[in-house]
Amino acid sequence: MATSMTNRPDGRGQLLFTPGPLTTSRAVKEAMLQDVGSRDTAFIETVRRIRRRLLALAGVSQERGYEAILMQGSGTFGLEAVVSSTVPRGGRVLVVVNGAYGERIVKMTHRLGIDTRVLRYAENIPLDVAEVRQVLAEDPGITNVSVVHCETTTGLMNPVEELGAVVREAGRYFFVDAMSSFGAIPLDLEAACIDFLVTSANKCLEGVPGFSIVLARREALLATEGAARTLSLDVQAQWRGLEANGQFRFTPPTHAILALEQALRELEEEGGIAGRAARYKANHTTLIEGMQRLGFQVYLRPEHQSYIISSFHYPDDPRFSFETFYERLNEKGLVIYPGKLTHADCFRIGNIGQVFPQDMERLVVAIEQTMEEMGVPLSTLSTASST
Amino acid sequence: MATSMTNRPDGRGQLLFTPGPLTTSRAVKEAMLQDVGSRDTAFIETVRRIRRRLLALAGVSQERGYEAILMQGSGTFGLEAVVSSTVPRGGRVLVVVNGAYGERIVKMTHRLGIDTRVLRYAENIPLDVAEVRQVLAEDPGITNVSVVHCETTTGLMNPVEELGAVVREAGRYFFVDAMSSFGAIPLDLEAACIDFLVTSANKCLEGVPGFSIVLARREALLATEGAARTLSLDVQAQWRGLEANGQFRFTPPTHAILALEQALRELEEEGGIAGRAARYKANHTTLIEGMQRLGFQVYLRPEHQSYIISSFHYPDDPRFSFETFYERLNEKGLVIYPGKLTHADCFRIGNIGQVFPQDMERLVVAIEQTMEEMGVPLSTLSTASST
Repeated sequence: MATSMTNRPDGRGQLLFTPGPLTTSRAVKEAMLQDVGSRDTAFIETVRRIRRRLLALAGVSQERGYEAILMQGSGTFGLEAVVSSTVPRGGRVLVVVNGAYGERIVKMTHRLGIDTRVLRYAENIPLDVAEVRQVLAEDPGITNVSVVHCETTTGLMNPVEELGAVVREAGRYFFVDAMSSFGAIPLDLEAACIDFLVTSANKCLEGVPGFSIVLARREALLATEGAARTLSLDVQAQWRGLEANGQFRFTPPTHAILALEQALRELEEEGGIAGRAARYKANHTTLIEGMQRLGFQVYLRPEHQSYIISSFHYPDDPRFSFETFYERLNEKGLVIYPGKLTHADCFRIGNIGQVFPQDMERLVVAIEQTMEEMGVPLSTLSTASST
Repeated sequence: MATSMTNRPDGRGQLLFTPGPLTTSRAVKEAMLQDVGSRDTAFIETVRRIRRRLLALAGVSQERGYEAILMQGSGTFGLEAVVSSTVPRGGRVLVVVNGAYGERIVKMTHRLGIDTRVLRYAENIPLDVAEVRQVLAEDPGITNVSVVHCETTTGLMNPVEELGAVVREAGRYFFVDAMSSFGAIPLDLEAACIDFLVTSANKCLEGVPGFSIVLARREALLATEGAARTLSLDVQAQWRGLEANGQFRFTPPTHAILALEQALRELEEEGGIAGRAARYKANHTTLIEGMQRLGFQVYLRPEHQSYIISSFHYPDDPRFSFETFYERLNEKGLVIYPGKLTHADCFRIGNIGQVFPQDMERLVVAIEQTMEEMGVPLSTLSTASST
């Protein structure tokens, strides 16, 4: 295993072009070389600083009525924490869906026995704010609205700010899954009228996986009293624990949390969200231009495409096998990501994490080489169907 | 922060005498210096090896009908995963309680709306198997029985093997919280008639926190179909995911999992559970003898005391303050643990993790010194009341 994981000539290990876990800096990983007590004063201070910084990244603060809560488990655990502990008993959620991550929220509400209304769009189409407004007007039973900011399925961006205004105006709670966008795509919690937002330590914040992050408007959080359906995923209780004595109710992933503090330091050094966005945009441009040069077809229209992750159609050639393609890139130390689309055969390439335009260029060169190895002529690509 | 966390002269950082997160080896932490893709072939192989080894530690295997499932989140998340996804709809749980961790299971069942019967014992008394047998005979509605193996509240051991035979005979499912015992106290899943067991990566296995471990008898696991009350804590779905393609349904804490593989390697090198138990017993003996030499009173009777964690009565002296005691030990790079008892003022000292008899001795010396600094004469200790 060690061999296959450290086969890059520059000693950086494999480069991950995935939506996370992703390539993190050496210093982020080295921050994990310490064992700290979870109830230790210094660790409690670390958690306090992290919570403050996360709010600042969302343009808000405790003073302005917002709270940051760290929740053990993957991003999905954070999403289910919000869904299961902020929708009031007897409430109804409107879930806006245009990809697998929206569908996942629906699976959660169904499993939790929460009354659900679903508004579905094609996987390459952003939600229609006017339609949501109409649904909210017609259905006064809807208490909460849920949407994904950047659908990691495709890279599609939804107009969260516009939608927030509509949801707030209609007097409902607004929940945004910002898993793959937070930290790289500017989003002001207050301006976007967001009540609850979930993201992860191991996406654009460039930390390691192990916990998720819930940002909440305090008033909305206080209003969730009695809603939590489980003990461990109880967002309000988790917040009260952190506020009471700075400690987690249950063992936190101490090492991953130390890593996030270093990651947040590096984010600041890079110029905050603006600086990170600039690098990711440069990564994205290099990738898209390179792939188009080879003849690959981008799944989404440019105006809907985030600069986080992109989906590309499979070449329309029987000699192309994704498994072989993936494995051969993997052997070159470059890890891409399978697709997750229902209606099109695509693979995905993320350009987040500690990767730079020259890495994206290297990936494009490796993809060109791999296509040659597989005997798939690049000329066939231009005939790939676009959905 | 860096200063306070690295103030030990031998460069090992702080030594944690806690029930976890605990002191891990340098190699375990260094295993986290790699970013791996969560869907990567090499990582999938790592997970497969870990799952096999965990079953072997419990004296069972897939071939003999058992399964190991890794679950994101802290140990408590693993417990709630089992509680929320293995008690059938309409079922009733008998929770045997003699400490805070038993009470936590009760909190979960209440929160989840699961019908619960509680059998409570004092915090210093092991459960009475005959009484459980009687309750099961009287109450045919009980479908599941839950118990804590080693109550981390005190260090109390419960007779899990004996109880298992009774539960199996009565035809109910048996769930053991072996959080702080697994890996150091021998327990054969089959012999103890255990259907579900939960432990954590960051207790006696000496990994880092970030996920829990569920061991299950496959037949019992298959019988839970439809029981899961949440998506993320669904044990059967998590297992099916791992079996289908070796991948997690949701992002795993890749770094923490790499750390566990190294930790399991070290456990093997130490001579498996027997070897680890020998070291922990030596640690424990050194601790107890040293503390008794100073005059401290052990909370539990020796025959009920595990060799994992021990509770000590506060000195009966107004000059003793736990906060000062803790802080002064902390300044010496030694981290102990507060008590969690309802009826007695105690602090706790764990002797698990990468600590050795000489570390326990060093702790005892530091405690003696700290008592002197605080002006608490050791002679007062012998008058402390025993519960």
